[in-house]
This record gives sequence, structure tokens and C-alpha cells, in this order.
Amino acid sequence: MARWQPDSRSRLEQAALALYGERGFEETTVAAIAERAGLTERTFFRYFSDKREVLFGGSGQLQELLVTAVVDAPASATPIDAVTVGLDALGVLFVGRRDFARQRQAIIVASAELRERELIKLATLAAAVADALRRREVGDPVAGLTGEVAVAVFKIAFEHWVADDNTQDLSHLMREALAELRSVTSGGSPSVRPSRG
Amino acid sequence: MARWQPDSRSRLEQAALALYGERGFEETTVAAIAERAGLTERTFFRYFSDKREVLFGGSGQLQELLVTAVVDAPASATPIDAVTVGLDALGVLFVGRRDFARQRQAIIVASAELRERELIKLATLAAAVADALRRREVGDPVAGLTGEVAVAVFKIAFEHWVADDNTQDLSHLMREALAELRSVTSGGSPSVRPSRG
Repeated sequence: MARWQPDSRSRLEQAALALYGERGFEETTVAAIAERAGLTERTFFRYFSDKREVLFGGSGQLQELLVTAVVDAPASATPIDAVTVGLDALGVLFVGRRDFARQRQAIIVASAELRERELIKLATLAAAVADALRRREVGDPVAGLTGEVAVAVFKIAFEHWVADDNTQDLSHLMREALAELRSVTSGGSPSVRPSRG
Repeated sequence: MARWQPDSRSRLEQAALALYGERGFEETTVAAIAERAGLTERTFFRYFSDKREVLFGGSGQLQELLVTAVVDAPASATPIDAVTVGLDALGVLFVGRRDFARQRQAIIVASAELRERELIKLATLAAAVADALRRREVGDPVAGLTGEVAVAVFKIAFEHWVADDNTQDLSHLMREALAELRSVTSGGSPSVRPSRG
């Protein structure tokens, strides 16, 4: 039986994740990643600008997918509808990626530098969604709030998705989180509920 | 007429904000802050651990106020009610602080390091609110989502509050943002609206 030979990029990605998990992100060098993958450092730098890029190289694609789906949602879609369409599109991106996502999440949680980078990624994503909504002529503060909501739903559903005991898919969990959020925001008592205007 | 003599802490704070605004945060030294305030570096370090602390020293108080209000909200309060009480408590903290907040915001927006620090502060705040809700026996994902919602409302209202043309108070803007959020999340079309469960 022929042994499956993944391409260089995947080999580097797998070697990097394994080493980050074993030694910690800060302690792993590009030289060690290349060696583990049976490739040269030069090849590593053909695919990644640095060792952080292995973990965050997908952020651009993720953001573009979400923004495009929000912008292209039907004209009749409300802001939250457009975001729902966008989150569904994101869900597709993660199908079959749970093992990678779990490994990546454990590495990020273990490093202060990476946790900060992840926060920046999410804040950038929220701002990008808000901008996409403004292109749909959604005003503020609704555009800004809806951008934050989109990322909050993604973040909470993602954390649930990568938890050990979970077997549901990310799209389902995001839909569920959106429904929970609707229930939360409508759950105020009349005495505490803010008046409009 | 006697010239008002602010205490050392305020003098250092004012000197620091003025210099960060004039020269940029990165380019300002503690020595320059102390000199501008007419005090010694030693005095500076009695009040602040470093020059970033001048801008973030209030984060602990802000978080404690919010968390305490959430934990102490009436037992009958729903999660969003408890958060509303917490945000009201925060609003009081900022009364009379708009000029300081505007100056601070401009400095933060101008520095990548400070923007990152601000994101970490907000993420920590969201996690603290979620924990406070869990102490009220609110389960997940509701606790996590409501923590994110609280911070999203604070962030968006705060940005509005420090904008040049705004004259409304922060509490009012947070109440308004909460109402907008309720309207946003309930605004899904039936065809796109997620099913429960």
C-alpha cells in the first residue's frame, strides 16, 4: 500500500503543530519545523512568513469569505440575516478541520503572544463585518453592534466546537448560539428593559 | 486667586496624556513625564508601574465595578438584566470623564501596542462578566454570549460617546445600544432565522 505523501505545505503545517504542542510555540524554531517535515528552512519560508503564520495564515481567507457572504446576501436580508448567511459560509470552511482546530486551539491557549494575536484577528474580523454591513447601507451603531455580534457568536460556537466532548458541527453550533443570543437579548424584565430613543 | 494645585497623581496623568498626544506614546519617556509634571521619576513609579499604566490603571476598578454589579443584581434578574445593571454602574464611573476619555482614546487609536492592550482589556472584561454570570448559575453558552454582549455594548457606546459631535452621556448610549442590539437580533427573517435545538 503506497504511503500517502502530503504536499510540502501540509507537511510543514503538521510538523509545526506537532512541535508547538510538544515544546511550546515560543521554544520551537523554524529550523526544527523544517527538519521534522524533512524539508529545508528555505521551503518553509516559501509558504509562511514566520512560525506564527502557520497558525494564522487562514485568517485572510476566513475574513474574505465572511465579508463576501455578508456583502452578497440578498438585498432584502436584514443585518442579522446577512451575518447568518456569512456564518453559514464560514461553517463550510471548517468542515473536516476539527482535529486541526483542536490542536491549534490548545497551542493558542498556552501562549500569551498567540492569545493576543487571536484577539486581534477577531477584532479585525468584527470591524470587517461592520464595514461590509455599511456597504449594505446599514447605519451605526447597528453596523458596529452586528459586527461584534457576528464575532461573539463565532467565538463562543468555536470554543464549544473544539471542546473534547462535542460532536456537532460548527454551523449547527453557530445557529444555536445565534438563537441563544436572540433569547438572551429579549430576556430583559420590563422594569430593567431600556426605553428606546 | 489661588492657582489650583492638583495632587501628584493627577499632575502625572495630565502630563503623560499631554506628552503622548504631542509626541506619541512610544516616543514619550517616564523622565519626560516627570519633568513636565514638575516631579521626579521616583514619584512617577510610586503611582504607576510603567507609562502604559497611566492609560490602563483604571481597568481593574472598571472590571470590579461591573462584576460586582452583575453578581449583586437581584436574584430574579435575567442575565441581560444583570448586565444592564452592571453597565449602568459603569456609566456612573465615567461621569465627568469625557475629556480624559477622548484624549485617551486618540492616544490608543494612534498606537498598535496600545490598541492590542485595549483589546486584551476588553476580552478580559467579557470573560469576567461571563464568570460573574456563572456565579449566578447561568449556564453556557448563555454566560459566554452575554459576557460578549456586555462588552460589545460598552465598546460601541463608548466609541460613540467619545466622538466629537456627541453630547449624550455614556449610560444613555449604552441603554440605547442594548435596545438596538435587541432590535438587531430579533430582526431575522423567518426563512433565515435559525431553528432552536
